[in-house]
Amino acid sequence: MKQETEEQQDFVKDITKMSVDFDRWYTDVVRKAELADWSGVRGMMVVRPYGWAMWEAITRAFDDMIKESGHENWAFPLLIPQSFLMKEAEHIEGFAPEVAWVTRAGASKEELEEPLAVRPTSETIVGSLIRRYIHSHRDLPKLTNQWNSVVRWEMRSRLFLRSREFWWQEGHTFHASAQEAIEEADLILGYYRSIAQDWLAVPVLSGKKSPAETFPGAVHTLTVEGLMRDGLALQMGTSHYFGQNFARAYDISFSNKDNEKELCYSTSWGISTRLVGALVMAHGDDSGIIVPPKVAPIQVIIVPIFRDAESRTKVEGFIDGWARELKAAGIRHRVDWRDERPGDKYAHWELKGVPLRLNVGARDVDAGQVELVDRLSRERRPVPVAGIAERLQKELAMFQSRLFERAQEFQRQNTFEFATLPEVVAHFRERAGFAWAPWCGDAECEAKIKAEAGGVTIRTIDPDEKPSGKCLVCGKPAKHRVALAKAY
Amino acid sequence: MKQETEEQQDFVKDITKMSVDFDRWYTDVVRKAELADWSGVRGMMVVRPYGWAMWEAITRAFDDMIKESGHENWAFPLLIPQSFLMKEAEHIEGFAPEVAWVTRAGASKEELEEPLAVRPTSETIVGSLIRRYIHSHRDLPKLTNQWNSVVRWEMRSRLFLRSREFWWQEGHTFHASAQEAIEEADLILGYYRSIAQDWLAVPVLSGKKSPAETFPGAVHTLTVEGLMRDGLALQMGTSHYFGQNFARAYDISFSNKDNEKELCYSTSWGISTRLVGALVMAHGDDSGIIVPPKVAPIQVIIVPIFRDAESRTKVEGFIDGWARELKAAGIRHRVDWRDERPGDKYAHWELKGVPLRLNVGARDVDAGQVELVDRLSRERRPVPVAGIAERLQKELAMFQSRLFERAQEFQRQNTFEFATLPEVVAHFRERAGFAWAPWCGDAECEAKIKAEAGGVTIRTIDPDEKPSGKCLVCGKPAKHRVALAKAY
Repeated sequence: MKQETEEQQDFVKDITKMSVDFDRWYTDVVRKAELADWSGVRGMMVVRPYGWAMWEAITRAFDDMIKESGHENWAFPLLIPQSFLMKEAEHIEGFAPEVAWVTRAGASKEELEEPLAVRPTSETIVGSLIRRYIHSHRDLPKLTNQWNSVVRWEMRSRLFLRSREFWWQEGHTFHASAQEAIEEADLILGYYRSIAQDWLAVPVLSGKKSPAETFPGAVHTLTVEGLMRDGLALQMGTSHYFGQNFARAYDISFSNKDNEKELCYSTSWGISTRLVGALVMAHGDDSGIIVPPKVAPIQVIIVPIFRDAESRTKVEGFIDGWARELKAAGIRHRVDWRDERPGDKYAHWELKGVPLRLNVGARDVDAGQVELVDRLSRERRPVPVAGIAERLQKELAMFQSRLFERAQEFQRQNTFEFATLPEVVAHFRERAGFAWAPWCGDAECEAKIKAEAGGVTIRTIDPDEKPSGKCLVCGKPAKHRVALAKAY
Repeated sequence: MKQETEEQQDFVKDITKMSVDFDRWYTDVVRKAELADWSGVRGMMVVRPYGWAMWEAITRAFDDMIKESGHENWAFPLLIPQSFLMKEAEHIEGFAPEVAWVTRAGASKEELEEPLAVRPTSETIVGSLIRRYIHSHRDLPKLTNQWNSVVRWEMRSRLFLRSREFWWQEGHTFHASAQEAIEEADLILGYYRSIAQDWLAVPVLSGKKSPAETFPGAVHTLTVEGLMRDGLALQMGTSHYFGQNFARAYDISFSNKDNEKELCYSTSWGISTRLVGALVMAHGDDSGIIVPPKVAPIQVIIVPIFRDAESRTKVEGFIDGWARELKAAGIRHRVDWRDERPGDKYAHWELKGVPLRLNVGARDVDAGQVELVDRLSRERRPVPVAGIAERLQKELAMFQSRLFERAQEFQRQNTFEFATLPEVVAHFRERAGFAWAPWCGDAECEAKIKAEAGGVTIRTIDPDEKPSGKCLVCGKPAKHRVALAKAY
């Protein structure tokens, strides 16, 4: 974001091509576009300002959505006593293998009476605490959210997607009826769809997970699933309906309108910094990343072009003349005055995926125009500086749409429909993408798909279409139409 | 914030008077105004939405300030290897007794090769990482900040002021010259003064700490110190200049303009959720807390008064007619439709410190007015609803000023000037407040003040006035004029 050293400049020329090795391309661009790095603490990342600013844009958008519908932010403790964690059997079975434990503390480093888990997620501490604040049906719904980081002792690692610490929001809500809690989980899924599609320009499939892919302790899990440019699916957000499972384990009850004691119905839901990885993998190309304007830390980069001090002064005065219009219009922009050649600057900002670039030379000053280059088409177009702020706002909106349409087109070209497991196996031997297929709902058939098609899983169940035909595995009548994919 | 149960209503009547027992009053109002509670995890708190929203207002204000001056938010790891922590001797000596250690993790709960500290503060991990990104003077300054929580194994506890986890921002900056780093620490101190005075309406003394009160590893520490209504001082924010101490310990160097390798100059600075405790203790009274409008989650509470369904409909329609003007004007307001008596509602919102209340009855509807009551004067004034949004904005601004002036007046009445230690000792035996006195700068004299005056410490050194006279302890010529106080 600031002035770079030569060493960093060299990075730009040193990126593995996406077409050659997607995984290496990903790591290269995340690091060289200055989004994040490994931290030297095994499996834990450091998120740099350019990456963090994208997450901040996402957090602001989502925080506005949930506050508008009456949710409130809380801060629950980071450390959770072992006994709190152990109350919901399925849940703890899912998380125990990934927990980091605080066992010693204080001046003498004495052993604690009870180990404390660094939260891997907060259902258990929220459940333990919220019961104090719920007595009557008039206390419901309780719509809580918190922004924090969680720790999970992952053995595999990939920047933003899988690391021992990640940043997220976790919502936990408590309701007086099953219906209301189910609607809450649906409402949040809609917000997640909007974040993915309207903000990150990533089209998603959304619907229920199969039982095998359901969150530990949940009755059902809803998901939004995007398609990355290597054809792998990425789970971009999940919203869980728990029924009364957690309320039972943590004794969260209320007196209902008939003055009878009843257990609450609850939900939880989360999106994380993994979404920064999603936008990288959904939109990038061999030149680097492409950042959707709505979450771009820099929407417009201005590159002055000059030969000498005189032409520099001329160009600088010209830019000063209209740059304040951009600021007034809320366009996030920067002028790159670094001591580098224009071509290197172009490559640098393409790597960082800035949507629009304005090249401004002395001849442009005379003509009262700038040269507009967008990160998608890379065409150079002259643009008069009269009314430039309004023009750039339109261009940014168009860029956002075109990026989404491009991703939609990619999704369409990589979505298939199959009737039998051999077809699915054959497809995933050669290609990737989403494969729709009919499924009977049986866990054995689901396991067989995964085993035979090299790790392919049911990403989501079609919420709209009634299934026709027979299960792709066993041939019994299908209950669901499901989207299959290899996934991160 | 939501509908309360009877049980919670009872709380309102059940608050220890401030004049009877300040400490119990504090805990009562923090809990009963629904700001925070102890969590059941020893020494760790849960911050409830009404308290968290105040912290969010502070974070937004401060985040805007630092971004405007070129600071960038990062996310550094939560867990810090023991070896990273141990490099700066003074620093680790200060923090080691308060560290919580992760020693086991994963499925088999195996012992880690190296214990990981849950960060008590991040100088060590930031220092270890930032060196990668600093090569040349062109990479400087590096102005980093992060919003997170930290863990310190405190043995004493007090909601918001002293707990094993608290939320804060920590800034860490790296510079090419001592001068620039010193100016950075000063700049931030100015921001902290503005947060305290302009946002929280708490007048502060600001200046350098004495060496004994300086942050472990720092060359100097700057502080803002407020006075609470029990006459005790509260440190509300600190900004540290490290010289090259941390850069030396973590080998953070750059090639300067002469192409010579040089160690960076660094700073760090933080404000925390303790500021929510500060506003409670600086402004509260026997009826509860008083929230400065600029950080108030609810600035205006509207209490409808009606006898029957008919008058309720009439009042509701009337309020609907102008409530949207309040929303459009950005006034944070709420209508209290709970099924409680008006008097109980008044007490409830006074407890929660909402600056302005509007009582609206059927007769007000006929007169086209509301009854305005502010939390400070509690006088009832009729206000016409024509132009109500603009009127309330003015009232809120006036309330903010009056609250600050009231706190200034309190500070004036509780600030004293003494020449000798016996005077100081005598004063603090009877009263509290700030006591200015001349000091020679000697650590022994400082220790003697603390020992003889029952824990009184030097809160800050007067940055402006040249000292005259002799040290209050030893009688040698004074080097500094210092503010003494008992402090939290």
